[in-house]
Amino acid sequence: MENYTTYKPEWAPSDAGKEFACQVMSGIDEVGHPSEPGPARFVRKQYTVDDYVEGVLRGDRMMLAKAITLIESNAPKHFALGQEILQRLLPHTGNSVRVGITGVPGAGKSTFIEALGNYLCNLGKKVAVLAVDPSSSVSKGSILGDKTRMETLSKRSDAFIRPSPSGGTLGGVNRKSRETMLLCEAAGFDTILVETVGVGQSETAVRSMVDFFLVVVLTGAGDDLQGIKKGVIETADAILVNKADGANKQKALVTRSEYEQVLHYLRPVVEGWAPKAYTCSALNGEGIAEIWDVVMTFMDIMEKRGSLQSRRQQQTLDWVWQMTEEQLRSEILNNPAVIARTAEVREEIVHNRLSATQAAQALLDTIRVEVRKS
Amino acid sequence: MENYTTYKPEWAPSDAGKEFACQVMSGIDEVGHPSEPGPARFVRKQYTVDDYVEGVLRGDRMMLAKAITLIESNAPKHFALGQEILQRLLPHTGNSVRVGITGVPGAGKSTFIEALGNYLCNLGKKVAVLAVDPSSSVSKGSILGDKTRMETLSKRSDAFIRPSPSGGTLGGVNRKSRETMLLCEAAGFDTILVETVGVGQSETAVRSMVDFFLVVVLTGAGDDLQGIKKGVIETADAILVNKADGANKQKALVTRSEYEQVLHYLRPVVEGWAPKAYTCSALNGEGIAEIWDVVMTFMDIMEKRGSLQSRRQQQTLDWVWQMTEEQLRSEILNNPAVIARTAEVREEIVHNRLSATQAAQALLDTIRVEVRKS
Repeated sequence: MENYTTYKPEWAPSDAGKEFACQVMSGIDEVGHPSEPGPARFVRKQYTVDDYVEGVLRGDRMMLAKAITLIESNAPKHFALGQEILQRLLPHTGNSVRVGITGVPGAGKSTFIEALGNYLCNLGKKVAVLAVDPSSSVSKGSILGDKTRMETLSKRSDAFIRPSPSGGTLGGVNRKSRETMLLCEAAGFDTILVETVGVGQSETAVRSMVDFFLVVVLTGAGDDLQGIKKGVIETADAILVNKADGANKQKALVTRSEYEQVLHYLRPVVEGWAPKAYTCSALNGEGIAEIWDVVMTFMDIMEKRGSLQSRRQQQTLDWVWQMTEEQLRSEILNNPAVIARTAEVREEIVHNRLSATQAAQALLDTIRVEVRKS
Repeated sequence: MENYTTYKPEWAPSDAGKEFACQVMSGIDEVGHPSEPGPARFVRKQYTVDDYVEGVLRGDRMMLAKAITLIESNAPKHFALGQEILQRLLPHTGNSVRVGITGVPGAGKSTFIEALGNYLCNLGKKVAVLAVDPSSSVSKGSILGDKTRMETLSKRSDAFIRPSPSGGTLGGVNRKSRETMLLCEAAGFDTILVETVGVGQSETAVRSMVDFFLVVVLTGAGDDLQGIKKGVIETADAILVNKADGANKQKALVTRSEYEQVLHYLRPVVEGWAPKAYTCSALNGEGIAEIWDVVMTFMDIMEKRGSLQSRRQQQTLDWVWQMTEEQLRSEILNNPAVIARTAEVREEIVHNRLSATQAAQALLDTIRVEVRKS
C-alpha cells in the first residue's frame, strides 16, 4: 500500500515530532544539562556566537563540527545557541550544488560517493558528505558512522564527512541534516552530497532538500527492481547503474536500458529536465566524470531558467510549514485532555451514541481550548 | 508522482475543508435560509425529528430522501437537524453489506451496477446505490445524476438510487456519502453499493467507508492499465474485467490472467483475503452471480474472524480524526492573522533573515493564539 495515500491517523499518543517539540519548546530540558560540546576534556572553553560564526566562515573544521553538534543537540540551551549561529550564517549559505544520493543497501552508494568525492576534490571542489538515516539508531551504526567506509575521502582536507545524526525521528534528523548542510555551505563547501538509504521515508526528506536527486541501482532488473521502494524511481533526476565493471558490465548496460524504458513512461519531476539512466563503476572510475557532467548540465539549465533559487526557497517554505504542522500535531496528540476526550469519543462511537461528525466537533472543542495552553 | 507521498503544504489560503467548516461551525450561514426541504411547494409541513426517525425506520422512501437532503444541506439549521436525526438512527445502522465499486470512465460501472442490483433485488435484497464524485459539480452532471442510466433498477421498489451530492470538496462529499449510507441502512437497505470514478482521491474515500472494494476494468492491459490511477489496483479486494462477451470474451480472459499476475505480487489489503481477478458481462449477465458469491465469501470470512465489526469501527474512528484535522487545518490556513504571519515569514526566509526552525516557531506562536479564538 506504499503508493496509495491511505489516511493513517494516530489515535494513540505518538512520539512523532516529540523530539522537535522538545527542541522548539525551550521549556523542556530532555537531556538535562550535558557538558559543553567539543573535544577538549579538561579545559572547557566557552565559545561565543561570534566565535562560532567567525570559525565557520573561515572554514575551521573544528568549529564547524562544534556548530553542527549544537544544531544536533537536544538540549534547549544548545538548540537556542545553534539557531542563533545558523541565523547569523544564513547570508553565507546557498553557494553549493546539493545532490541527494539514494539506493538500496548493497547498491554501492558509499564506494560511489567515495569515487565521486575524490573526483570532485581533484577538480578543486570542497565536498561535504552528509547522511540522513533516521533508522541508524535502531540498526546500530549509521550508514556513514564508520568513516573507514570512505577511507580515502575521509583523509582529504577538502572533504568533510558527517555521519547521520544519531537516533531520533525522521523529522528531527531531517531538520539536523538541513541545518548541517547550511553550516557546511557557510564554511565554504561548494558541493554537498546527501546520502540516504533506499528505505522508509527518508528519500522524500532528502529529495526536498537537494537540487539533484540520484538513485543508485544494481544490475538485474527483475528481483532488484523490487528491492527499490515504489515511487523512488519516479523522484529521480537520474538513475545510475553502479558496478558496471568486469563480467557485470554487459548486464549493467541491459539494466540501464530497462530503466530508460521505465523513465520514458514517467512524468519528469523537474520541469525542463528529462531523467535518464547511466552506468558507472566506482571500482575503476568509469562513468564518474560523466554522471557529474549530467549534474552540472542540470544545474546550468535550472539556473538559466531562473528556477534554482525559487525552487530552493519553496523547499524551505514547505519545510517550515511541515515543521509547524508536525509540531502542532504532536502537541495535540500528546495532550492529556485530548487523549482523554479521544477515548471518550471512541467509546461513544463504538456504542453508536455519537455520529462521526458530532465526535469530530467534540474533539475540536477540546483541541481549541488545549492548543492555546501549550 | 502520485504514488510518492511528497509533502504538499498549502501556503495560500485554501478552500479545502471550508464546506465542512461551515457545517461544523453553526455560526456561519452560507446559503442563508432556504426553504424547508421536500417537494411540497404550497404547504410546507414542519417535520419533527421524530417524524424523520420514524419515517426512515419504517422505510418511507420520501422521508429517507428528505433526511438525506438535510444531511447534504450546507445550511446550519438543516445540518444540526440532520445530525440529530442521524444520531437517533445510529443504533439501527450497520446491517448491510457495503461494497465500493470503482473503475475508469467507460469501464461499464453503471451497467454492471444495474445488472448486479437487479440480480440482488431478484434475490430479495434491498439495494441502495450511492455515488461519491467530488468532481461532479465541475464536470456538470453527477455520474449517477441521470437515473436513466440505471433505468430498470431505478424503477424497482426495492432499490434506491441516490446521485452524488452536488458540488463541494471531497471532504464534504465524503461526509455526506457516509451519512447517507447510514440513513439507508436505518431504512432497511441491506446492500449498499457505493460507486466512484477511478480518478482523483475519491477511491480512497470510498475504500475507507466500505467492507469490500471492487475495481472494474476493461479488457486490453497495455493502454488501459495506464488509465487506472496508480495504486488503485493495490487497494482492490477483487478486480472485475467487464464486457467479457462476444468477440471481447477471449480478450477479457487474457486481461483477467494479466491482472491475476499483478495481484500475485501485491500485498493483500485485508488480512486473510487474497484478491483475485474475475470476468463478467453486464450485457448477458454472465459472472454477476459469481462476483456476488465472492463478496459473500469475503463477508463470511471477515465475520468469522471477528474483524468486520472492528474494521468498521476503526473506519469511523479514522474518519472522525480525519474530519478533525481537516477542520483544524482549514481554520488555520484561512485565519487572517496566520496568513499575514505566513507572508512575513516568507519574506524573512527569502532574505535569509530567519532560519526555517525559527520561522516555524513564529508561525506556531501565531497559530496557538488564533486557534483558541476560532
